[in-house]
Amino acid sequence: MDTIQIIGVRGLPLIKPGDNLAKLVCEAAEKQGTPIQDEDVIVITHVAVSKAEGHVVNLNEVEPSWFAKAFAELHDKDPALVEVVLREAKGIVRMFDGKIITETRHGFICANSGVDKSNVPGNYVALLPKDPDGSAEKIRQEIKRLTGKDVAVIISDTHGRPFREGEINVAIGVAGLKPLRDRRGEKDLFGYTLRVKQTAVADELASAAELVIGQADEGIPAAIIRGYKFIKSEESKALELVRPKGKDLFL
Amino acid sequence: MDTIQIIGVRGLPLIKPGDNLAKLVCEAAEKQGTPIQDEDVIVITHVAVSKAEGHVVNLNEVEPSWFAKAFAELHDKDPALVEVVLREAKGIVRMFDGKIITETRHGFICANSGVDKSNVPGNYVALLPKDPDGSAEKIRQEIKRLTGKDVAVIISDTHGRPFREGEINVAIGVAGLKPLRDRRGEKDLFGYTLRVKQTAVADELASAAELVIGQADEGIPAAIIRGYKFIKSEESKALELVRPKGKDLFL
Repeated sequence: MDTIQIIGVRGLPLIKPGDNLAKLVCEAAEKQGTPIQDEDVIVITHVAVSKAEGHVVNLNEVEPSWFAKAFAELHDKDPALVEVVLREAKGIVRMFDGKIITETRHGFICANSGVDKSNVPGNYVALLPKDPDGSAEKIRQEIKRLTGKDVAVIISDTHGRPFREGEINVAIGVAGLKPLRDRRGEKDLFGYTLRVKQTAVADELASAAELVIGQADEGIPAAIIRGYKFIKSEESKALELVRPKGKDLFL
Repeated sequence: MDTIQIIGVRGLPLIKPGDNLAKLVCEAAEKQGTPIQDEDVIVITHVAVSKAEGHVVNLNEVEPSWFAKAFAELHDKDPALVEVVLREAKGIVRMFDGKIITETRHGFICANSGVDKSNVPGNYVALLPKDPDGSAEKIRQEIKRLTGKDVAVIISDTHGRPFREGEINVAIGVAGLKPLRDRRGEKDLFGYTLRVKQTAVADELASAAELVIGQADEGIPAAIIRGYKFIKSEESKALELVRPKGKDLFL
């Protein structure tokens, strides 16, 4: 019988710029009696990563453009927040009815360029990490240095989706695992060869982690997923999870 | 420390029309030493449900239309399969480059109307269950009758998504739990009130279950998720997870 465990990492202090997030996660995991083990997948929210990296912006210090001010006023939004969202965007998918769906500088399609107000103090917002794969890899290396354990790291964000209501967590940074499991060529119960199946396992792991992370009032910025046999990789990038433009069959 | 367990249910026989799927899952769970408990979430693949309900079609007995034949020939597909996909569709989102994205009769947007060739014997395909919420509720009631345990049931399917590569599991039928967690009004770490957050927990649970279910060669059609504090509901429908037409901000 295979069992996968999803363990919330509690008791972390509030994350501040310059914090060694890997160390805080390792210590908190140790303290609660679930020290990190080889082949764990560590899922960390992008807000925690961006806070530790100082990748936050004080909205009080942002000078909104004429366009940001006009859009904010028409839709009852904070002009400084609109300005930051626009600055983080490489393109705009839709800006309508007060909502802003953008392509981030990394290439992710999401609401508000991933700029996040929740769990950030004062009038600050957290941007997405500049290089989420690089952040994931640094955390992975630091965990290895501190504990000797070989893990995979996923940095998660909360995304809305076309067609479906509600948000789910997805992977925006990965290190140490292949984010897609390519199942083409595998056989099913009856020997039928699967033809067009790739599973976005890093997104599924991020969603699984959200089941323990998603408690805004409790402050759980990280989860350990134990017992999932991921495919190791040293070169994977979360952008493998983004469909190349022009290849989208839904749009 | 909160821990969620995802337990694959192994050792089920091949599912046949008329099988009592709830009973088979309960027995297999018991046999592997993880009997079903109160407040478990039982995730079952739609293929297993449709096979038990006899909601399968023999492609050898399908007479494809002129249109289905032409599309199949142009794109090297099985005309009978194209015909079944079209018959299961209420509308077509896109039919292009050999791929067919439809709106199913239930209202789900997905590839091939959810018609599934994998893990079905011979030249049969599994359709989506006619009433996935009803199927989930029946399984839930039967588990209650057999074991006395109060559980939630999710019927899962594997969906591709716009913008992102790879497929993930989502919920197409639910019973006993609210599929969306409405977090508007909840406060974050710093007392900031979350404004527009609804989490699609049933989809996240389905994705978490896929981490153990998604082994085509091992035949794991069901998973038990234990330790997740879901919000109980007697009236929820998986269609709550489908965005009403005209309200999609991405499209």
